[in-house]
Amino acid sequence: MDVADAGAGPAEVGILEVVSRVCPPDVAAEARAWRRLDSLTKPPRSLGRMEELAARVSAIQDDVRPASGPARIICCAADHGVVAEAVSAYPQAVTVQMVANLAEGGAAVNQFAAHLGVEVLVCDVGVASDTTSIEGVQQAKVRSGTANMAYGPAMSREEACQAVSVGIALARRAAGDGVRFIGTGEMGIGNTTAASALIAALAGVPVSSVVGRGTGLDDTGLARKAAVVERALMVNRVDPTDPVGVLAAVGGLEIAALAGVVIGGAASGVCVIADGLISTAAALVALRMCPEATAYLFPSHLSAEPGHGVALQALDLDPVLDLDMRLGEGTGAVLAIGLLGAACRMMSGMATFDEAGVSGAVE
Amino acid sequence: MDVADAGAGPAEVGILEVVSRVCPPDVAAEARAWRRLDSLTKPPRSLGRMEELAARVSAIQDDVRPASGPARIICCAADHGVVAEAVSAYPQAVTVQMVANLAEGGAAVNQFAAHLGVEVLVCDVGVASDTTSIEGVQQAKVRSGTANMAYGPAMSREEACQAVSVGIALARRAAGDGVRFIGTGEMGIGNTTAASALIAALAGVPVSSVVGRGTGLDDTGLARKAAVVERALMVNRVDPTDPVGVLAAVGGLEIAALAGVVIGGAASGVCVIADGLISTAAALVALRMCPEATAYLFPSHLSAEPGHGVALQALDLDPVLDLDMRLGEGTGAVLAIGLLGAACRMMSGMATFDEAGVSGAVE
Repeated sequence: MDVADAGAGPAEVGILEVVSRVCPPDVAAEARAWRRLDSLTKPPRSLGRMEELAARVSAIQDDVRPASGPARIICCAADHGVVAEAVSAYPQAVTVQMVANLAEGGAAVNQFAAHLGVEVLVCDVGVASDTTSIEGVQQAKVRSGTANMAYGPAMSREEACQAVSVGIALARRAAGDGVRFIGTGEMGIGNTTAASALIAALAGVPVSSVVGRGTGLDDTGLARKAAVVERALMVNRVDPTDPVGVLAAVGGLEIAALAGVVIGGAASGVCVIADGLISTAAALVALRMCPEATAYLFPSHLSAEPGHGVALQALDLDPVLDLDMRLGEGTGAVLAIGLLGAACRMMSGMATFDEAGVSGAVE
Repeated sequence: MDVADAGAGPAEVGILEVVSRVCPPDVAAEARAWRRLDSLTKPPRSLGRMEELAARVSAIQDDVRPASGPARIICCAADHGVVAEAVSAYPQAVTVQMVANLAEGGAAVNQFAAHLGVEVLVCDVGVASDTTSIEGVQQAKVRSGTANMAYGPAMSREEACQAVSVGIALARRAAGDGVRFIGTGEMGIGNTTAASALIAALAGVPVSSVVGRGTGLDDTGLARKAAVVERALMVNRVDPTDPVGVLAAVGGLEIAALAGVVIGGAASGVCVIADGLISTAAALVALRMCPEATAYLFPSHLSAEPGHGVALQALDLDPVLDLDMRLGEGTGAVLAIGLLGAACRMMSGMATFDEAGVSGAVE
């Protein structure tokens, strides 16, 4: 069965309803933001991109004193059938081992987040093994890992939509909890392969320009990974104009969930900060499904993975950090959230020229 | 009197003694840092520059679990006689007005710092007017602003050294208070002109390549500023091999104090994070006086001011942030301290592969 022929199941119908409710922030709110920023005790625009960030958040929150928190990383985990093709330097068991490590606070994103006062939520959307015994892991498994995309679709269209719906629900719950900044994160051995396939298909670029070493492939492994992505795209005859179909064919369950986080965050009027390669592939899927969500999405860093720059370019996004990182988990998103929070605190708490009795520029 | 002929006064003798005590961290400590970083639950080196930062701090602190704080911005303020040449878009009175704003917490650096848990200390090293009535301002005035460098030396060699000594004392006090990260910051209308002159002289580059718009000069103002810097360098016949002489001739009291903060921080074994143009000009002076301090200095961001890139290149420093900021005060330093703290927390708090029971890469 061609996944694109499956029609819209109940999960997809629900997503379309959420998508229809997303609308960009009021342009007048951004104008108000700039008026306040230009009244603060600094030469106009002298904080560069920090002012741009503050203005965007201010417009989204419709508040000239935007809140600088709270923030939550939503870290979605799942396994990938394509690991059978030896596309990763690490065994599949690392996914569940790292889910436990993330839940216990031992991973990199936990430590960055602890330093910056950000919460980390870990959700099993499709880990191959059972995670119910791991304390603190949200349970939302759609299926136990994807099928091997080198031989057919990674999952059905309805499964992909169920995973997207998981992400929408996670974002909505975050908004309900008062969260103002949602960062995306992921864990899933093999997911750079799926992300590369998604980006190649949706951005319409050659596979060779997006495939990277992931967790540490050598040259032979890299060539094998590129061949697997080529094959998956061919076998599945993906249609780039159907983002849900592409997601089902060559995506992943955690990637689908993160696409839902982007859509759900936008629908709830919350800023969503995308991490690296995998998260940006998810954002690419989300924004093809829901272009209006663009206004709520913030890129974080430029990953060392080559496909990430390609995906950012396809989305016309310019990240604020470039630290040569390639870990995922939400590590880039949480660092960017630190900057966003500082920008909002600046905008909210600085004195104006009038308040501080500081003279303006000589005309 | 040529300032370089004045000989070493008591302040300069004291500085030479401090300089002689600066020595770089143990190379074995950095090797230990990398061994721990490579044992943590992430693909080796996948956190890029965050790992490099953590390794450097770990070596400086000689601890494989480096402390992520506390941190303090030392913000030094002074006035500049060269403002008589109309080189700034703002009147001189703004220096003391902003000192009050900084002391009251209304400036940009205060808000960034509050968000990131960093302390801000404001010190008057040479504001033209009295600041004793402003609560919270450290008093260490060497003189009430510099003389106009367009007609002669900005200050005497001994005054420059007294201001350097103020900075050394501030850094020592910070170290005594347990501070692990010192960020440099400044306030002084006219100080981009002094910083430009210092960079042109010490880096041996044309004035046109370093002079920028500062707080917001137009084209006419920019041309005037460049001509004033040219004139100051000519009138004072500066000798680029004598950093203290150049500092006295075309520097500033807050710049001299920040050079002292760099030297004093290094002497106390504390990381020093340099802010933008003015702070990096100060670092250039400091490292010409004390090359061994290089190991303790971290650049923060790349300022939009053209001279900053030139100064960083002269010091072979590659900043971690590029946010198109040009405000000073320590705003770039405090954001970089946020990254440094997160890097240290990561290195200290992450689980190792063994501790977390996570499988390593397939060989």
